[in-house]
Order: sequence, then structure tokens, then C-alpha cells
Amino acid sequence: MENLNGLKRSDYCGNLRSSDIGREVVLMGWVQKSRNLGGLVFTDLRDIEGICQIVFDKDISQEAFDKAEKLGSEYVIAVKGKVRERQSKNPNMPTGDIEVFADELRILNKSETPPIYIKDDDDVSENLRLKYRYLDLRKPSMQKNLMLRHKVANIVRNYLSENRFLEIETPFLTKPTPEGARDYLVPSRVNPGKFYALPQSPQIFKQLFMVSGLDRYFQIVKCFRDEDLRADRQPEFTQIDCEMSFVDMDDVISIMEKMMQRIFKEALNVDIQLPIQRMPYKEAMERYGSDKPDLRFGFELNDISDIVKECGFKVFSDTVNNGGSVRGINIKGYEKEFTRKNISSLEEFVKTYGAKGLAWIKINEEGIVSPIAKFFDEDKMNQILQRLDGQKGDLILFVADKDEIVLDSLGHLRVEVAKRLNLLKKDDYKLVWITEFPLFEYDEEENRYVAKHHPFTSPMDEDIDKLETDPKNVRAKAYDLALNGFELGGGSIRIYNSDIQTRMFKALGFNEEQINEKFGFLIDAFKYGTPPHGGIAFGFDRIIMLLAGEDNIRQVIAFPKTQNASCPMTNAPSSADEKQLDELNIKTNCIEE
Amino acid sequence: MENLNGLKRSDYCGNLRSSDIGREVVLMGWVQKSRNLGGLVFTDLRDIEGICQIVFDKDISQEAFDKAEKLGSEYVIAVKGKVRERQSKNPNMPTGDIEVFADELRILNKSETPPIYIKDDDDVSENLRLKYRYLDLRKPSMQKNLMLRHKVANIVRNYLSENRFLEIETPFLTKPTPEGARDYLVPSRVNPGKFYALPQSPQIFKQLFMVSGLDRYFQIVKCFRDEDLRADRQPEFTQIDCEMSFVDMDDVISIMEKMMQRIFKEALNVDIQLPIQRMPYKEAMERYGSDKPDLRFGFELNDISDIVKECGFKVFSDTVNNGGSVRGINIKGYEKEFTRKNISSLEEFVKTYGAKGLAWIKINEEGIVSPIAKFFDEDKMNQILQRLDGQKGDLILFVADKDEIVLDSLGHLRVEVAKRLNLLKKDDYKLVWITEFPLFEYDEEENRYVAKHHPFTSPMDEDIDKLETDPKNVRAKAYDLALNGFELGGGSIRIYNSDIQTRMFKALGFNEEQINEKFGFLIDAFKYGTPPHGGIAFGFDRIIMLLAGEDNIRQVIAFPKTQNASCPMTNAPSSADEKQLDELNIKTNCIEE
Repeated sequence: MENLNGLKRSDYCGNLRSSDIGREVVLMGWVQKSRNLGGLVFTDLRDIEGICQIVFDKDISQEAFDKAEKLGSEYVIAVKGKVRERQSKNPNMPTGDIEVFADELRILNKSETPPIYIKDDDDVSENLRLKYRYLDLRKPSMQKNLMLRHKVANIVRNYLSENRFLEIETPFLTKPTPEGARDYLVPSRVNPGKFYALPQSPQIFKQLFMVSGLDRYFQIVKCFRDEDLRADRQPEFTQIDCEMSFVDMDDVISIMEKMMQRIFKEALNVDIQLPIQRMPYKEAMERYGSDKPDLRFGFELNDISDIVKECGFKVFSDTVNNGGSVRGINIKGYEKEFTRKNISSLEEFVKTYGAKGLAWIKINEEGIVSPIAKFFDEDKMNQILQRLDGQKGDLILFVADKDEIVLDSLGHLRVEVAKRLNLLKKDDYKLVWITEFPLFEYDEEENRYVAKHHPFTSPMDEDIDKLETDPKNVRAKAYDLALNGFELGGGSIRIYNSDIQTRMFKALGFNEEQINEKFGFLIDAFKYGTPPHGGIAFGFDRIIMLLAGEDNIRQVIAFPKTQNASCPMTNAPSSADEKQLDELNIKTNCIEE
Repeated sequence: MENLNGLKRSDYCGNLRSSDIGREVVLMGWVQKSRNLGGLVFTDLRDIEGICQIVFDKDISQEAFDKAEKLGSEYVIAVKGKVRERQSKNPNMPTGDIEVFADELRILNKSETPPIYIKDDDDVSENLRLKYRYLDLRKPSMQKNLMLRHKVANIVRNYLSENRFLEIETPFLTKPTPEGARDYLVPSRVNPGKFYALPQSPQIFKQLFMVSGLDRYFQIVKCFRDEDLRADRQPEFTQIDCEMSFVDMDDVISIMEKMMQRIFKEALNVDIQLPIQRMPYKEAMERYGSDKPDLRFGFELNDISDIVKECGFKVFSDTVNNGGSVRGINIKGYEKEFTRKNISSLEEFVKTYGAKGLAWIKINEEGIVSPIAKFFDEDKMNQILQRLDGQKGDLILFVADKDEIVLDSLGHLRVEVAKRLNLLKKDDYKLVWITEFPLFEYDEEENRYVAKHHPFTSPMDEDIDKLETDPKNVRAKAYDLALNGFELGGGSIRIYNSDIQTRMFKALGFNEEQINEKFGFLIDAFKYGTPPHGGIAFGFDRIIMLLAGEDNIRQVIAFPKTQNASCPMTNAPSSADEKQLDELNIKTNCIEE
């Protein structure tokens, strides 16, 4: 193996073009492939910018040619040579018009045969990809994702800095989050028996920054939640975290939607029209069965409870009379795409959301085709069809159940149907702010109301009087930004008035002692001149995933964890040795295997 | 208390100038002070940009005046009014030419009397400042530090992005660092009995990025070390971490010193001349007794061992003959500043570094004054004075001991003396690259050589043959950047040749099994085409501390930890409840108080 010995790279492989013809260049990179054709060696050399063809000719340098003949995949080489026009141009390659005619070759390093192919369409298991992530990250698609991530972080930082936000770092070794998800704990060696918690978000610190008069704060920061993982969750994830003083909801929304506009423009050259549409939570639930509705297609929910409250179909009428509802979605114009078998599989689908069944009406050439048609007289049927705009070519699907189940199952069903119909275009970006969230939700397990966002979220002014009398119907000054069925982020205006904060805590069922124990220093801080303030946090991984057109956040994270929160490459987490645990004053309950 | 109700801030308090006279403005902020003078209320209103004087006149608004009379310190208010010229201008305030004549006042929040004053010269204990950090951060000096930090982070990110570095996030929940300091551990709930470690640095990940062909990586990132804390150490600290492929030491130094130049220019408007001076480790130790020498002043070390090897002063000659050395520093021209008592206190000082005593020679009007003069004949004395350039007005100080103690104690002594003489100007920035570090240092405890930087640091080409025969004298392709006696950062060119890596591991005393256990996946990764690469990491907190002219990194960290790694504000770390520890499959050895 050879050394650089002062040799300097002059260009990236992927950047050479016709305009470079005649130039002497030095390239360094990895051998994508290399073959001897008609007495010449042709080598595809790859670096982060792309691939360039190198030609070795024994008439130019016998030494370079001899070495080139022995090149294997993923060898690391340096090449010196002249850029020249290619005889058989390759229009599929950005560098396809040129090649480098080499007069010097240094083999900087060899490579064993890689366990995975370095190409985007390699379809090995994700586990193998994660085990050899350093090779997986050689794939152009993965490098593109990481470059996009870097670019978007820069856009965000520039935009927020221009708008006078300060990026301020908050502690990672801190206190458990009151009223939050499960924390990761870190035993303290210096303080035996005590633990730090890794932050679930910098929520408390950013509010304290507002108390400090730091005016506008942001941070692109890792946060941690020890929850069981879903496809788009990671134990550690990255947040764009923001907080502003002397603002109301419109101020936060306005400055943040301009940021989203800039991200889309600069990262994807996509224009987002402002203002972004806003929709109250209740409307989103009623129309789309979701607080993060996918607005790329219709199939809206319609309530027919009033029509079927009295009808011959007892499944419907009983449901309504027992306090539930019956709602339907019209898969407009797609009647032909759904056979009975298809509809059965949709029924199986809604059952996973707790629905007991799926009723349906088709309107085709023969008229109305439906197993439940017989239960309705013509008038009722007409009312139902009118409510759902049922016309020839439509398929209407119904669920009857408790409200939550109806909304949730139909909300998911409309997306599932759209997916099957191939209506979900990745480059169609439909953003919507969801507002007027409920302040509380009832926790059956704890048998009390808990804060839907967190206990510092301000109620809407017009609902403050209901804090004691009708908590269920108190709406919050909270807002989420949704994109194509995903929540990009959410935030709220915070309570800064200590009377209202006390009433909020009481509504959550806390007595003074509990308040002090859970929120002590924050409550203290609020006594010394707290400005009106509010903020938002965006899920950075998810934003990048959607911008990159990926289905999985692991595609936009360099070294992600698997579903069981482990890393197949490093084998983290791993056993700790006795001595270290002793120093930390802890023992595990597990017997070492 | 009142609400914003749609009122929008038009300006920051501290930004108003004469050019704003006549404008209608809305300001929001904190009451710095407020007093009734001659029938008018004068209120100093503070926000992040500064302070502006507000005047309330009952003839303009009785209501505003009445409220203004009741304003207390740190009340949060909104004021509407007109900017007008001030009658008695205050040249000490940026806004001193104007005032705001208010016609509306809203009290947005009250404040209890703060436990610390919101002014820079408040001299309460640091512990109280940290307990009420949210108030401490209201001080202009602290806000200025955080703004500087934000600014420098932006400069670094912009510079590195322009130079094609990608910021890529690395995991926080990862594997213990082989051969590193003590790790913080995080118990895994999902993998009982296993632990993550928080990263001491992203070293391994950034080298893997180079294996991935990501070419140039950086990250401004939190790192963690569970070490006992010194004044400028924190359990969590921030690093500017960089790595580059296809480079040698000159490439890394060149790109990084341009970054430092830009930081100094853009943050402080200070010009740094490039190239920054370089000094081999050995020279730095011999001349300054330190591998991070403070070059703002002289007082260099001089070895007189050869002169005193044979002399009448047995303390000197015995030391040399037992393998130690005798060295001195000349406090040139400051003889008069040091009484015998002062010198005694310097002797106490060097004793803290293990020196047994401090010999001295003064040259004043009377000639040579020294308790040891009598032991030297004229010739020896002349040789000593010549070696140290001793002339009238000088004070020369000597330590005789083992080399390490002599260098260390005199290295610290020259700084101590300069400090007492007030020679350490904070705005004098003397940067120096220290190169040619030893690759190894001997670990008495482990009874083997350990890597001075880390086991992937490349030896210098000319020293490779000494790896087995003379490890002590193998120099590394390592480099540190020092500023005024502080190490700003350090890095190295890494080993990418697997033969040399194996020889390195052998020199460290590892057998194959240990190598696999400690470095398994990294060694694996290096088999698949590793490019020549190297990098550097800078201590971000320390850089900001020095740029801000602070003596303590806690002054540039929003929420730092104390010496016992705790936070007086949040009381982290704290006790964890039984249930949570059970879920994590751990127990503490401590009895709950």
C-alpha cells in the first residue's frame, strides 16, 4: 500500500465535465468497478460527488497499467491524469462525456470483498445494512440523505439566526421530566444513589430562557425517550426546538411557516403558499378522523348518525342510541377498483382499529349494490347518499361504533384506501396547522385529567372559565403542523399568569406539595417576572424523512437503533464490568450470561 | 395582570437612537428601575438589546401614570409611546440621547424581589447565581456571552459548510470508549443488564464516516466524561469535531487555522496572522515547560545541567548526576518587584508541583544577591548568567529535580510570575500549533505504554521502525492548537494501514483477543477500503471562554454543573423511584436517606 506523500486531490470525481477537458487532475476515491477491455483498463472511480471513468493504457504508463489490472472493488486509490473527451459517451452519468486518462496510480488501500453491495438497489436485510452501516453509508442514496439533512439544518439555523433567535445549548444530564414519557437515567458516581435523566425535550430550560429575557431561543438538539419503538420512533431523536417571548399564536405560526416555506424552497425548490391553511382540531377529527390529516386526497368523513338514529338497520340505530355514531367515507369514482374480496380486506383493516365491521354501498351500472340496502327505505337511502354525495361509480364505507373508534378507524381507512389506489404522491406537500386542541385528555389509568400537550400550555382565553366546570371542553392555545398525514411539530403559548397556572394544576388534580415536588424551581422562576411566551418543536428526523421521500426515519440517521433499541454495528448496549458498576453504586438484577 | 391582546412589539429597547425620534413605538421588557421625579415617572426598561428610558406623564395618560407609579423591579411591561429627544442626555448609554414618552402601559407580569441583583457587578456566591440561573442569565454580560457563543457556532458552521464539511449527527446512546476516560453509563430497559455509554467523543463514528466515503465531517456536539472536575472541566462539554479524508497534517492544519482566523475576525475583529507558528512538542517542553505554552511573555526555561553537573552546590550537582536536571527562568527586568517574601511565596507555589525548593539569583545595584552564590566560582556563575542572559535588574529562578518536575514546576512558575506582574493581557492572542507529540506515554499503574492521544493516531513515517525497539521515542502525526496557555484542540492523522495498526496494538500490549474485544467492529471496518484520513476536535466551551475574556467556562454555559457535577437549580442528579429502577433492572447500593 502506498501513501499520499504530499499528493493533493485537485477535484472530486463526480464534478468533472466537458469544460475540464485538457486539465491535469488528481482524483482519489473508491473503485466501483474495474475491467480490462481490449488492452485497456477501465475503472469507475467513486467519491462523494459521484463516479468518473478512468482509463489506464500501458503505452502511457506500464506501471500504472499493471497496478490497475489488479484493482478490486472498493480499493482506495489516487489517480493522476488528463481529462479527455470520451469516445462512447454515457448520457446517464453526469460525468459521462469525459474520462481521465491516467499516467499515475497509487493504491492507498485494499479492500476485502464487502458483505453488502455498494449500490442503491441492493436489497439485503436492514439488519445486515445496519451491521455494516459504514458500507451502507457509501450508497449514493444514503449520502444524499445525509447531505440533505446537513443542508436543511443550515437553512433552519440561518433563518432563525436572521430572525434573532439564539441557539443556546441545554443540559443533557438533568432532572426527570414531570408528567412526561419514560426517562433514560444516568447513575451519578459523585452523588451515590442519585441519577440524572436524559432530556425528553428542553421544554423547561427553554421556558427559563424566556424568564431570563433571552427573547428568542432555538436549538437543533437530541432528545431521549425510553418508549417502545415504532417505525418512525428512535430512542434518541433530533428536535428543532424554539421559544419566543412577547408573542401570541399568530406570531409563532407566522414565523415558523415562513421557515417551512424556506426549507421547501431551498432544499427541494418547491413553493409553499402562505399562509398555510389552519383547521381546528375538532374539524380535523370530524372530517378526517385524525389530528394530522393527509389532505392530498378527499374521502372525507360524514356523520349520518342523525339519519340512521331511527332506521331498520339495528347495528346503526343501536349504536347511535347508545351514544355512538355512524359515519361514512365516499371513495368517489373508485367503485370498480374494489371487489367484495377487496372490501373484506378493508374490513379486516378497520378491525385492527377496534371497529366491529365495515358496512358498504356501491353505486354501479345496476344501481345500488349493498348488503345493508334492504334495511333502508328509499327516503333514508336518499338522505344517506345525499349526505355523502353518492353517485354512480362511488363506493361508500361505513363504521358504526363509539366516536373514538369510528373516527380512528375511518381516519386510517381513508389513508389505506388512498394508498391502495396509489393516490399518495410523495412530491405533493399538503401542510396544515391544527389548532384549538383540547387542553386535557382523560387518563383512564390514572383516573384523572392529564395535559394533552404539557401542564404549561395556556387555555384559550374564551375557555378559561371552564377550567373547573367543564375541563373536557377547554381548548388550548396549542398548534401542530401536519404534512401528508405526519405531525411535523407542535407547540403552544404557555401559561405565564401564576393564578391560571395554579388553576391548571388543580384541574390536573395536584395538591401544593405535588406541585412543588414536580415543578418546584420552575414555579419559583415564574415569580420573578415571566413574559408572555410560546414556542414549538419540530421532529427533525421526520422532516428530513419526508423531504427525502423516505418511508423510514432510519434512512436519514447515520447510525440508528433497531426496534429493540440496539445497534447491530457496535452491539450497544453491552455488558458493563463489575468495577464500573461498583463505582456507580449500582447492581444489575440480571445474571450475567 | 394584563395580556398582549394582539399588541405587537415594534422595536427592541436597546436599539432606539436619535434617528428614531418622532416614531411611535411599542416596547416590551423588564423594569430595571423606576422612580417618581418631579411629578414624572422615569422607568428604565430592559430587554436583550439594552435599556431605554421611558417617561410617564399624568397629563398624557393618568391611567398609565398611575400604573407606572406602582412598577417594581423586574416587572414585565409593554409600553406604547413616542420617541423624543432627551433633555439631559446620558452619553454612557447607547440609547442615552432619547427617551420614550409613554401614552399606554400594560403590566404583563409582576415580580417578587429577586434574590440576586440583575447587574454585572453583583458579587453574590456562584452557588446562589447557579441556583437562580434564570435570573443570573438576565445580566447583560451573561447574555453577551451566550450571544457570542451563538455567533461563533454560526461562523464555524458556515466556514466548514463552505469547505464541504457535512455536519452529521452521531449517537449519544452508544458503546463504552476503549482506552478512554471514565464513561457515563445508561441502563437499557429493553435489554436487561446491558448499558449504553454516553460518548466521550464521536471519534470512532467520525473515522467510520471516512470509511463510508463521506469525505469531510464535522459536528458541534456534546461529549461526556465522568472525571473529577477542575475549574475548566464539565461532565458534559461541547466539541467542534472534524474529520477529513485524503489529507495529511498540513492539510488539516491549514484548513483549521483559516477557521480560527475567521472566528477571531468575525467574532472579535482581531486579525490572526497565518500560518500560525508551529513548535515541536519537545521544544515547547524545553522552552516553556508545557505542551500548551503561553507565548504572550518570555521567561523561557534554560537548562544549566551541564554547567552545574560539577559545582560546589550539591543540590544542583547531585540532581544532575542522578539523572535529573537544573533549569532556570529569567524574570527579566523585574528584580525590584520581588522581595524575599515574594520569592518565598513563589517557592511555596512550585512546591505544589512537586519541586523541593526554589533557588534564586537577583542582580541589582549591589551586584549578585543570592543565597546560593557562594557555592559557585566566578566562572560557573558567569556561565550560568550567560546561559540565562542575566543582567542588572533581573531575577533568575531555578528548580533542580527530575525532568518532569523541573519542567512542570517552572512551566507553571513562569505563568504565575507573569500573572503577578500583570503581563497576561486578555486581548493578546498568541496561537501556536504543537506538533511531533510522543505517540506513547508510560502508564505506571498499568505497567505498559498507552496511547498519548488514542490508539488510532499514526506514528510519524520516520519513526515507524522504532515502534518495537524504542516506543518512547516514536513521535505521532498529532497536533494541538494552544492559545495563551490553553489547549484549544487537538487531533491527528490516523493509522489507515492495517499492518501498522497491528504493530501499534502490539506496542500497547494487546493480544488479538483483546484487540477484537476492544475495537472489533472498527478493525473490521478498516478492512473494506479505508482512505488516509485525519481530524481534530476543539473544545468549544474553552474557545468561547477565551474569546469572551472569561476565566471560567461556567460563564459561557447556560446551565453548568458545579464541582460535584450537580445543578443547584434543578437539583439534578436526584433520587429515582423504585418502580423506575425495577424497570431498568438495577438497584442502587445506597440506602435512601
